[in-house]
Amino acid sequence: MNHRMILKSVGTLMYIEAACLIPSLVVALLYGQGDALAFAVSAAVVAALGLLLRLFKPKTTDIFAKDGLAIVGFGWLLVSFMGALPFVLSGAIPSVVDALFESVSGFSTTGASILRSVESLPRGVLFWRAFTHWMGGLGFLVLMLALLSNRASALHIMKAESTGPSTDKFVPKLRQVAKILYMIYLGMTVAVTLLLLLGGMDLYDALIHAFGTASTGGFSSRDLSVGAFGSAYVEIVIAVFMVLCGVNFTLYHMLRGRKWKLVLRDEELRFYLIVVAAATLLIFVDRTGVGVSQSFGVTLRESFFQVGSIITTTGYATANFDLWPVFSQCVLLLLMFLGGSAGSTAGGLKCVRFLLLVKIARREVARLLHPRAIKTVTLGGKIVEEETLSGVMIYFFLYVAILALAGFIVALDGKDLLSSASAVLASVSNIGPGLGVVGPMGSYADFSVLSKLTLSACMILGRLEIYPFLLLCAPSFWRRVNI
Amino acid sequence: MNHRMILKSVGTLMYIEAACLIPSLVVALLYGQGDALAFAVSAAVVAALGLLLRLFKPKTTDIFAKDGLAIVGFGWLLVSFMGALPFVLSGAIPSVVDALFESVSGFSTTGASILRSVESLPRGVLFWRAFTHWMGGLGFLVLMLALLSNRASALHIMKAESTGPSTDKFVPKLRQVAKILYMIYLGMTVAVTLLLLLGGMDLYDALIHAFGTASTGGFSSRDLSVGAFGSAYVEIVIAVFMVLCGVNFTLYHMLRGRKWKLVLRDEELRFYLIVVAAATLLIFVDRTGVGVSQSFGVTLRESFFQVGSIITTTGYATANFDLWPVFSQCVLLLLMFLGGSAGSTAGGLKCVRFLLLVKIARREVARLLHPRAIKTVTLGGKIVEEETLSGVMIYFFLYVAILALAGFIVALDGKDLLSSASAVLASVSNIGPGLGVVGPMGSYADFSVLSKLTLSACMILGRLEIYPFLLLCAPSFWRRVNI
Repeated sequence: MNHRMILKSVGTLMYIEAACLIPSLVVALLYGQGDALAFAVSAAVVAALGLLLRLFKPKTTDIFAKDGLAIVGFGWLLVSFMGALPFVLSGAIPSVVDALFESVSGFSTTGASILRSVESLPRGVLFWRAFTHWMGGLGFLVLMLALLSNRASALHIMKAESTGPSTDKFVPKLRQVAKILYMIYLGMTVAVTLLLLLGGMDLYDALIHAFGTASTGGFSSRDLSVGAFGSAYVEIVIAVFMVLCGVNFTLYHMLRGRKWKLVLRDEELRFYLIVVAAATLLIFVDRTGVGVSQSFGVTLRESFFQVGSIITTTGYATANFDLWPVFSQCVLLLLMFLGGSAGSTAGGLKCVRFLLLVKIARREVARLLHPRAIKTVTLGGKIVEEETLSGVMIYFFLYVAILALAGFIVALDGKDLLSSASAVLASVSNIGPGLGVVGPMGSYADFSVLSKLTLSACMILGRLEIYPFLLLCAPSFWRRVNI
Repeated sequence: MNHRMILKSVGTLMYIEAACLIPSLVVALLYGQGDALAFAVSAAVVAALGLLLRLFKPKTTDIFAKDGLAIVGFGWLLVSFMGALPFVLSGAIPSVVDALFESVSGFSTTGASILRSVESLPRGVLFWRAFTHWMGGLGFLVLMLALLSNRASALHIMKAESTGPSTDKFVPKLRQVAKILYMIYLGMTVAVTLLLLLGGMDLYDALIHAFGTASTGGFSSRDLSVGAFGSAYVEIVIAVFMVLCGVNFTLYHMLRGRKWKLVLRDEELRFYLIVVAAATLLIFVDRTGVGVSQSFGVTLRESFFQVGSIITTTGYATANFDLWPVFSQCVLLLLMFLGGSAGSTAGGLKCVRFLLLVKIARREVARLLHPRAIKTVTLGGKIVEEETLSGVMIYFFLYVAILALAGFIVALDGKDLLSSASAVLASVSNIGPGLGVVGPMGSYADFSVLSKLTLSACMILGRLEIYPFLLLCAPSFWRRVNI
C-alpha cells in the first residue's frame, strides 16, 4: 500500500475543508453572534493539519483499489472529526461526542440531530451545519478530483466514494466527469435557492434548505423543519427537487446530450419513479381512509412530500409521520431501507441493487424449472457480470447485518424497540428522522454515548457503502504499515 | 413435468394423513368428549380423496427436480387443508380460516395459535394439534420415502422438503437415510416422553410436549405453556431436548458410528452451541442488571429455556418475555431470524447459511485488499461450490423480502408495528409467539382474515424454505399442464 500517498491525499482534503469553513466564517461575521472566532480558529487548525500531512512525500503517486478505499475511509473520518470543531469551539454543542454526531450526520447527509431546538443557535453554526451536507452530498473526494487530480488511478477513489454498485461508464475522462457532476449539483442547488427566494424565503433560509435538498441531507434552520414555513409552494419546490436529486446524476448529463430515449429507458429511473408514485398513492389512500381532518389536497401534498423526503433519504418533514397509521409507517420504513438511485446524493440500499436482487431471485426460480438453462441477468439490455451480482447480494447481507449489530448495541439503552430499530435504520440509510423517540419532531439527544458513537459509525458506513470503512477494520490492512 | 405422478404422490400422502388421524381418534374415544366422530369422518374423507388421486396412472414414475418441488408444495397445501377438518367438524374451531391457520401452524411446526385458551378444548383435538407438529417435524414426504419409495429420483423430494442448503451427503441409499432420520426422531420423542413421565407428568401431557419438543413446534396443552407445570425438572428436560432437536440429525447418526471427532469438528454445531451459550449469558446479565425479584438460578433457567425455545423456533415459554428488557428482546429477535441448524426440525434462516454469508463477506473484504487472489469458501475443510454460495445469498434476500412483503400486508390491520413485524417473523421462522399482541401470553385471534391467510402462507414458505411454494406461483410452471 502507498501509505504516504494516502496521508498526503488526506492532507489535501484538509485544505479543502479549511476553505469550506470560510463561507460559514463570513456568515458568522455578517450576523455577529459571537461564533466567528470559532470558525477562524477551526479553519486555521484544519489548514495546519493539512500542511502537516502534506509533508509526507510519496515515492510514487500511483494508487490501487485498496489505497483508494483507505483514502476515502480515513479522509471521511478525519473530515468529520475536524468538522465538529466549530460546534465545540463556539459552545453551540459543548459535548465532543454530540458535536461529532452532528458533524458526521452533516457530512453523511443524514440529518439526524442531537439538538432539541436549532433556532437558538448562532446563524454561522447553523450555516456550517447545512453546508456540511452540501459538501458530503456528491463527496469530498470527487470534489478533490474535479479540482486537482488528473490521473487514471484516481478511478479507485471515485469508485470508493460514489454511490451504487458500479461507475464503469466513466473510466475515461474522470476529471471531466467529476466536474460535470459537480456542475449539475451546483445547478440543482442554485435552482432550489432561486425558486425558494421567489417564494418569499430570505436568502439565508433559502441557502440552508437548498443545501439540505440538493444533498438529500435534511438539516433545517427551523425546529418544525420545512413545515415551519407553512407554504404549499415551498413544500412542493423542495419535494420535487428532493425527488430529482434522488435520480442518478449521469442521467442529467445524458439529457444535456439530448439522449432522451436512453434516459427514458433507464430501468432504475422507471422503478424509482413508480415506487415514488405508488408509495404516495398508498399513503394517501391509507391516511384518507383513517379520516384526517384536512382537505384531500393537503393530505396528498403531505404524502408526496414525505415519500420524496424518505426515499431520497433527506429527512425533511412537513407533518409528524410518527402519528400516521401503521400501514403508512410501514411503507415509509420500506422506503427508508430502499433509498434512492445509484449515482445520486441519496442513501439507502439503492433502487438498482433491489432491482438486481429481484432479477437474480427470478433467475433462481427459473433454474428450478429448467436446471440446465444458462441464464444471465441483464440491466438496460446489457449483461451484468456474475461478480457484480455476487457483490450486490453480499452487500445486501452486510447491510442487514450492520443494521442488526448496531440495533443490538443501541438496544442496550433500553429505549423501545421501534425507536431503537428505526434510529439505526435512519442512520445507516442516511435519513435522519425515524419513528418513536427519533420521529420527525424528536431528537437523538437522549441516547447514550455508546449509542451515539455507534450511530455515527452507521452513518459513515451507510454513506461510504460499507467497504472503505470495513477495510479499516480488517487486521490484514494494518499489517506492514510502513511510512 | 410428470403431472400424473405428482397427483398420485399427493394421493399417497392423503393415505398417510388418514392413518395419522387414527391415534387422535383413539384418544378422542378414550376421553369421550364428543370429538371422536369428527376424527372418524375426517379420516374417511382424507382417505377417499387419496383413493381418488391415486386413480391417476403415470406413464413413468421418473421425476425431476421441479416435480419434486411440486409434490412437496401441493402435498403440504393439501395436507394442511385436510388437517383443518377435525378442528371444524368437532366445532372446536368453527371458522374455516382459523382452523386452517391452526393446521398450517401445526404442520409447519410453528406453534402460533388463534386460540385464546386451549384448556377447554376436547382432548382428542388437542392431541391432533400436537400430533400435526410431530408429522411436520421431519416432513411428511421423508416419511413417505421411509415407508414406501426406493427410487433414486426420490432424491428430489427429499431435497425439496428437508431443511438447509444441501443434502448431498445422502445421495446413495436414500431410503435407509430417511429411515435412520425417522428412527432418531422417534428416539428423541420417546426419550422426552419417558423423562417427562419420570417427572410426574401424566402420559397425555407428556406425549403432547414430546411432540412439541422433538418437532420444535411449541403447541402445549396448557394456556401457560410449559410454565404451567411449575417444575424446574420439566423445564430443564424440555429446554435440553429443544436444543438437541435444533442440531443436524445426521450428526446423531455419525455419533452412532462413533465418529466423535467429525461431530465435534462440525462448524455449524460449534457455532450453534456458542450462540446458545452467548445468548443465554447476555439475557441473564441483562435481566439480572435490571433487577428481577427472583433468584439467579431461576433467571438463568428462564433465560436458557427461552433461548433454546426461540433459536430452535419451538416457541414454548416459561416466562412472559414480552415484559423482558429491550436488549433481551433484541437478542431473542435475532435468534428468531437465525433459527437452528440445517437438517434439524428447527426453522429460521439456519445457522449454516449465516456462517456461509459471513464467510462470503469476509472473502469480499479480502478481495478488496488483494483483488487478484482467487479465494474459495470452505466449510468443514471442504470447498463450497459457488452455485451453493449464490443460492444461500439469494435465499437470504428472499427471506428478508418475504418478511417485508408480508409485514406490509399484516400492517393493514393497524396493529402496532412491533406486533405486526414480530408476527410475520414468528410465522416465517416457524416460531409461534412473537412480541406485543402475539407475545407468549397473547394470540393471533385478533388478526383479520387477510392477515391470517398471509401468515399461514408465511408458515408454509418458512417450513418449505420458499422454493417449492414460490414455484407454484411461477406462471411458466402452469403452462402446458396436461394430465
